[in-house]
Amino acid sequence: METYVILRDLAIIILAAKFMAIVAKKCKAPGVVGEIIAGLVIGPLLLNLVKPGDFINQMAEIGVILIMFSAGLETNLKELKKSGLIALAVACVGVAVPLGGGLLLYLCFNGFAPPGSDEFFRGLFVGCIMTATSVGITVEALRELGYLKGRVGQTILSAAIIDDVIGIIVLTFVLGLRDPSSNTGLVIGKTMLFLIISLVGGYLVYRLMKIVDARYPHTRRIPIIGLGLCFIMAYAAEKYFGIADITGAYVAGIILCNIRDAAYIDRKVSVNSYMIFAPVFFVAIGLKTDFSHIDSSMLLFSICFVLVAMLTKVIGCGAVGKICRFRFIDCMKIGVGMMTRGEVALIITNKGLNLGIIDSSYFTAVILLIIISSISVPLLLKFLYHKAPDPET
Amino acid sequence: METYVILRDLAIIILAAKFMAIVAKKCKAPGVVGEIIAGLVIGPLLLNLVKPGDFINQMAEIGVILIMFSAGLETNLKELKKSGLIALAVACVGVAVPLGGGLLLYLCFNGFAPPGSDEFFRGLFVGCIMTATSVGITVEALRELGYLKGRVGQTILSAAIIDDVIGIIVLTFVLGLRDPSSNTGLVIGKTMLFLIISLVGGYLVYRLMKIVDARYPHTRRIPIIGLGLCFIMAYAAEKYFGIADITGAYVAGIILCNIRDAAYIDRKVSVNSYMIFAPVFFVAIGLKTDFSHIDSSMLLFSICFVLVAMLTKVIGCGAVGKICRFRFIDCMKIGVGMMTRGEVALIITNKGLNLGIIDSSYFTAVILLIIISSISVPLLLKFLYHKAPDPET
Repeated sequence: METYVILRDLAIIILAAKFMAIVAKKCKAPGVVGEIIAGLVIGPLLLNLVKPGDFINQMAEIGVILIMFSAGLETNLKELKKSGLIALAVACVGVAVPLGGGLLLYLCFNGFAPPGSDEFFRGLFVGCIMTATSVGITVEALRELGYLKGRVGQTILSAAIIDDVIGIIVLTFVLGLRDPSSNTGLVIGKTMLFLIISLVGGYLVYRLMKIVDARYPHTRRIPIIGLGLCFIMAYAAEKYFGIADITGAYVAGIILCNIRDAAYIDRKVSVNSYMIFAPVFFVAIGLKTDFSHIDSSMLLFSICFVLVAMLTKVIGCGAVGKICRFRFIDCMKIGVGMMTRGEVALIITNKGLNLGIIDSSYFTAVILLIIISSISVPLLLKFLYHKAPDPET
Repeated sequence: METYVILRDLAIIILAAKFMAIVAKKCKAPGVVGEIIAGLVIGPLLLNLVKPGDFINQMAEIGVILIMFSAGLETNLKELKKSGLIALAVACVGVAVPLGGGLLLYLCFNGFAPPGSDEFFRGLFVGCIMTATSVGITVEALRELGYLKGRVGQTILSAAIIDDVIGIIVLTFVLGLRDPSSNTGLVIGKTMLFLIISLVGGYLVYRLMKIVDARYPHTRRIPIIGLGLCFIMAYAAEKYFGIADITGAYVAGIILCNIRDAAYIDRKVSVNSYMIFAPVFFVAIGLKTDFSHIDSSMLLFSICFVLVAMLTKVIGCGAVGKICRFRFIDCMKIGVGMMTRGEVALIITNKGLNLGIIDSSYFTAVILLIIISSISVPLLLKFLYHKAPDPET
């Protein structure tokens, strides 16, 4: 019955997030960095004012979904089509290189093991943890900088979405090496089905929404139906197709990005996002950070883990960018933009733990990766864009 | 970890609420009636698509808090001062008459008992359940009609807020008759303290926000600080002063109602409210309704309970309105506006159950009262305002 206690947490979160975002901007850093640091400050790591819990996690999930829905709504479909093939290449290499890097790292720390052995399999799994980009923070940082709709921004966004799907296929494939019951074919089939349903169903929804929008332009029902579609697609993606909910939300945004009131929906969703949900998402990253159980050998491994995970993304994605004739600095932007990791890495780690593949010490490394990439990527992106803005914007 | 499952419930809730609100308006009924009915339809009573749970309850709580904060922001302070004394009178009589009515109803069903006896005490407690008006639905109905800021609307709003406080004092007094450890003086003292702190602290916050607002007008920080203040005051009211959180949220709105960006804050808060939180609040009322355990004698008592609870408010509050020289139809508006009951009635019932004063059959009666008053009040208000709009608006 005591529903009012969450109000205290929410008040602290939104005020601390806004205050630290303002401080961050005064220091010329992106606001999201401030919000994540706010989470570190008010969370168990320092002041212990707010503890992460079910409600905060659920609000945070809605937060990242609203961010991705917004990103979808702001998509330039022509730009997306242009960047589609490049993004696919960036995503594929951006999965392969960290996978190899993670394997190598594991073998370096635990001695070489032949392919097919249990140790080699463990190494592959550690590689899997490194594959999935979590694009929420990059999206928000690019939006703050005003470059989300540029060619580089669209390439990062599309690549991160595709990377998510490829990461899941690779994970299922790796798990399938050990457990024949998990079926890589089924995963690929489900992903294809999701794409087909999104395309066909999405087109129908788009036509329908165009009619509704023409009859009732600028009414409340338009953003509410849009938000409903976003929630349904996010849920369905995760529940029935094994794809991350944020991918579903992004696709929902793309479906609606060409109706006349797309910007109107985006404005209304953005208000919900920046007032409550998005701060909760960014702060929650900081809240979950807890380094109380760390020792020196774990610290060494964790630091190497973070370095490998971040550098392999930059090298892999950047190299593809170079091949596709992006300027060097734009390749760096793509590589850096793909570096952020988030809850997908945690979920995969959790899966490995439950299956007895890895032990809980990997959580420390993954959380360190999430927090360091979440803070450094917006800073690096700002630096790179400051040095060389997109040519076309 | 399965945070995405709430997305399904949210999608169903916001889409069903919007759809039923549109249908209700087509039938010339207020939208909130449609939203409550949507809850009945999708909830355990009919389709069983969505079950009430912690997350829904917490979102609903934020919903009613945003509604009350908005109402506070839209307050006309001059009008409030003018209606203050009348509202106090309406609230006092509006608590006394239902208290007597509940007692009489109990004695009618259970035989007469002398004052001081256990049965008489039980009757008094049943009266207590009937005292607290839950003004959220009335506020939304008045806003929809466009009469929230009128003299009658302001009188209802102030009276409902005062009535809440008086109801709590009466409850503590009644409980004190049996248990000397509960201290009526303490309750009155706490309430006074809340008022003083709200006045003094509120004035300081108001001056401070005026300065911030003048320096950064129309920036995101203004509505975010406002929302933070709302959450803090709602939490503090309930946690430290034993006053309903919605009262704290309303007072926070009043504190900010005269800064230059009050309407700007209100617009941003309203978007959050109508897109997600308010529909969840109204739908949740319907979701919690479950009549599976009802029998005929309980039904008879419940119907009488609902009738007495609703009529005593109309008679009590309406009579004061008449004495204060409102037109007859405006007295009816005041009486009807004060009829709605909500979670406070449930909380008091729960308290009585825990203390062994009443049995669980009263829950049925209270839920019936909540649902019938929630649906009938907006309909009756619309009818009354349609017949005779406020003279001054």
